[in-house]
Amino acid sequence: MNPSKLRGRDLITTQEWSKEELAYTLDVARSFKKKYRRGSLPQVLKNKTFFMLFYNTSTRTRASFEAAATVLGGHAQFIDFATTRGPEGEAVKDIARMYERYGHGLGVRILESAVNYEYGKGNEILREYAAYTNIPVINMADDMYHPCQGLADVLTIQEKFPRFRGKRYVIMWAYSDRIRSWGSVQEEMLIASRSGIDVTLCYPRGFELDEKIVLQTRKNAEESGSTFEISHEPADAVDGAHIIFPRSWASHECVLTGLNKFGKEREVTIHNKYSNWIMNQNLLDKMNKNAAVMHVLPVFRGQEATDEVMDGAKSLIVEQAENRLHVQTAVLALTMAGKIL
Amino acid sequence: MNPSKLRGRDLITTQEWSKEELAYTLDVARSFKKKYRRGSLPQVLKNKTFFMLFYNTSTRTRASFEAAATVLGGHAQFIDFATTRGPEGEAVKDIARMYERYGHGLGVRILESAVNYEYGKGNEILREYAAYTNIPVINMADDMYHPCQGLADVLTIQEKFPRFRGKRYVIMWAYSDRIRSWGSVQEEMLIASRSGIDVTLCYPRGFELDEKIVLQTRKNAEESGSTFEISHEPADAVDGAHIIFPRSWASHECVLTGLNKFGKEREVTIHNKYSNWIMNQNLLDKMNKNAAVMHVLPVFRGQEATDEVMDGAKSLIVEQAENRLHVQTAVLALTMAGKIL
Amino acid sequence: MNPSKLRGRDLITTQEWSKEELAYTLDVARSFKKKYRRGSLPQVLKNKTFFMLFYNTSTRTRASFEAAATVLGGHAQFIDFATTRGPEGEAVKDIARMYERYGHGLGVRILESAVNYEYGKGNEILREYAAYTNIPVINMADDMYHPCQGLADVLTIQEKFPRFRGKRYVIMWAYSDRIRSWGSVQEEMLIASRSGIDVTLCYPRGFELDEKIVLQTRKNAEESGSTFEISHEPADAVDGAHIIFPRSWASHECVLTGLNKFGKEREVTIHNKYSNWIMNQNLLDKMNKNAAVMHVLPVFRGQEATDEVMDGAKSLIVEQAENRLHVQTAVLALTMAGKIL
Repeated sequence: MNPSKLRGRDLITTQEWSKEELAYTLDVARSFKKKYRRGSLPQVLKNKTFFMLFYNTSTRTRASFEAAATVLGGHAQFIDFATTRGPEGEAVKDIARMYERYGHGLGVRILESAVNYEYGKGNEILREYAAYTNIPVINMADDMYHPCQGLADVLTIQEKFPRFRGKRYVIMWAYSDRIRSWGSVQEEMLIASRSGIDVTLCYPRGFELDEKIVLQTRKNAEESGSTFEISHEPADAVDGAHIIFPRSWASHECVLTGLNKFGKEREVTIHNKYSNWIMNQNLLDKMNKNAAVMHVLPVFRGQEATDEVMDGAKSLIVEQAENRLHVQTAVLALTMAGKIL
Repeated sequence: MNPSKLRGRDLITTQEWSKEELAYTLDVARSFKKKYRRGSLPQVLKNKTFFMLFYNTSTRTRASFEAAATVLGGHAQFIDFATTRGPEGEAVKDIARMYERYGHGLGVRILESAVNYEYGKGNEILREYAAYTNIPVINMADDMYHPCQGLADVLTIQEKFPRFRGKRYVIMWAYSDRIRSWGSVQEEMLIASRSGIDVTLCYPRGFELDEKIVLQTRKNAEESGSTFEISHEPADAVDGAHIIFPRSWASHECVLTGLNKFGKEREVTIHNKYSNWIMNQNLLDKMNKNAAVMHVLPVFRGQEATDEVMDGAKSLIVEQAENRLHVQTAVLALTMAGKIL
Repeated sequence: MNPSKLRGRDLITTQEWSKEELAYTLDVARSFKKKYRRGSLPQVLKNKTFFMLFYNTSTRTRASFEAAATVLGGHAQFIDFATTRGPEGEAVKDIARMYERYGHGLGVRILESAVNYEYGKGNEILREYAAYTNIPVINMADDMYHPCQGLADVLTIQEKFPRFRGKRYVIMWAYSDRIRSWGSVQEEMLIASRSGIDVTLCYPRGFELDEKIVLQTRKNAEESGSTFEISHEPADAVDGAHIIFPRSWASHECVLTGLNKFGKEREVTIHNKYSNWIMNQNLLDKMNKNAAVMHVLPVFRGQEATDEVMDGAKSLIVEQAENRLHVQTAVLALTMAGKIL
């Protein structure tokens, strides 16, 4: 594929990129990972600016995007939305058009808490930025999707399992007393199913995700010849599985009602009923001998999973975090410069 | 003019630079705009740091200054004053002297809210930074002036009207329920009148600006052979005019009393009397056929102006925002490096 | 010494580096200071990232570390801990391992207020970052130590007194109504005594510092053939001394109890008993004719010291602040790149 083909392209969810485009991006990421270690990445962002507009906090996304710009010879501006005129009511279109004139790419993170817990509103605003600017808009996590996480995770799975087709990936709801977005889990389902990985989604009843995205995952699996299953029994779900991602997320009713109206206490009471949904050694022992533990991080240790599991020999969480850098280096080079050399 | 002449110069208000210096800076900005598009800007800030000290929020100023440093091969540090020891009472002179030792230029934004709404105090503090440091201090907007905005706006006017002498520029008070600084409007009057553009200032009685600056504008107009008029009737003011800038600002008494003492509610009540002072298509139709709509942004859509006007074919707001980048690239190259090649 | 020897080394306190390593670092700093002025620093951090994780506010440390990365051709990310997922409870080990994968060095500032005023806890967390990452971890000030300040101050003393052995350095408690950390003062004692400078620590009874560090200072002095004395009488202490550093710090009981439990009002009441402990011209006149006034800044003018003294001819505070840049440029080049050319 010609790298210039992706120049100017937005990345809102991997679902909106073709399989060929995703595969190519992962190839570039693999190549860039080697070049990063050799210190020989192409300086394709020289004098170029990537704006990172954060409505929400971030550990990995910010650090890895800013580092990605640096290793490509460019610069990323970390912009906390709270430090802009945005909170005074400045229009998204005015902000979006402006960044186009000052730089070459725009990342936006906007989660539920930034949009008064109206599910889908974060994604809507992100798309508004994309609509009003010609520079690529990269989703740095919204309330529905998290494409760079999805790409990094598939890269990590492919590194661990070069023959990843037919490997079984369990995304398991896990306990925490905190309220977390559906975005990462949904992106994960979409890209894994589309890549030919068998996906099992396991959660207590009441923790159903976005119906449309579940439907799309099912379609993805059909089209790629993989399987997609839903389970409500962790021990069954993990049995013989190759990959586990233990992750807390908010209940269906809470997300669709909005946390403000639903009430945090009420939601935590629901979570507390499932405080035994923790990824531990016992569950890990039921998995394939060569199994991998993954997590997008931050992981709530002692709630979602035990330290033993997260820090054990099967944990890929550090590799997975590292791969954020490499896929994003690829995404920025392709969308902002259309060049990989 | 020799670019080294401006090396080390502060830019507090355009009024303090000679006409020749301003004209030269605009020439450099025009040249840099072309070079920006070709990716051939001189790397005159290589290894150099421009400190951007923000007492207040910013969308454009921060993004454009940081991008300006990047395209010139340098680096701008975004420093939210709240993250420094300043709020604990560290002396301005100690901060100013320090930045001189660590870098090559210092931008400061300090509006009314940062100085307890004592009009002129922001400018006074800015001048204190300038007094204690030998590196150039650039006003990134204070409670009296906004020189880079003024430069960008004159550049935009000159691009739109290559024969700008005698064109009529209406700065019109416009409604909003928010309280805004006089700085941009005052800078605008000063530099436009000095550039030979006819200026009409139009506002409801009670919204008079800083007397001394009005007087200076009158002098500027006399010296440059342009006109300066004050009107209280929008329909009259815009009649046949070439440029309109619809902008809300705080009432005279409010600013001189200080918003804290004056009271926000009281000020909004005054604004509300003039809620029909909105820049709309009707007013636009009275202007010259080739008229231009400008705004420093953020614009309060639906209050200061209608979307129809702001997004219409005559609106130059995006070009104007872009020109912030180019004039600032010129200002940084000239004041920090004294070089344009 | 071979610069590669320090590659990957943490800098938690200068006490943990050998004398030879400190001397070498200061030599590199002196050489880099000249190269900085000539604009000929080695670009050893090209494409490299130094993460600066700030749990607390900073004026000098942030500006100088970020500038240091810039002049070496690299990039420093300013990360306000509040903008990360850390406050939600993300584990230090997960954060530490991640930065290793995205960059080449990690600075951390963590003072008492960030650790609920449990003395030593800040240092403990900093060491946790260091334990979990292979990239160098640099202490950007914690509740016990401030190594880059110590290095900068010794450099400043050596510049002022090329024959610094036997010169007498008085660290004097000085009044303020604010509560300040022991870190800078303790680092100062350690490195000065180890460098062969005679140290006098002068404070009102009740303001004793960390016992173990006082003991270590005594040992350092013995080993280096310098002296270490404790005084409770400023006029005696400064008599004939060569260097004075007037600095407020919290009382022994307050620090060991924790400010939260001890109470701010109670501590200020203790301070207020010693409001005459101010460094003024009268004390300065008792010092050696060629005496130097130093301060790590911010200085509380009118409390710790008079303006007359801080801005007088004997004050080295601006040089001292500048030297932060040069020692840090040396530390980053040595620990992150292991190269000085």
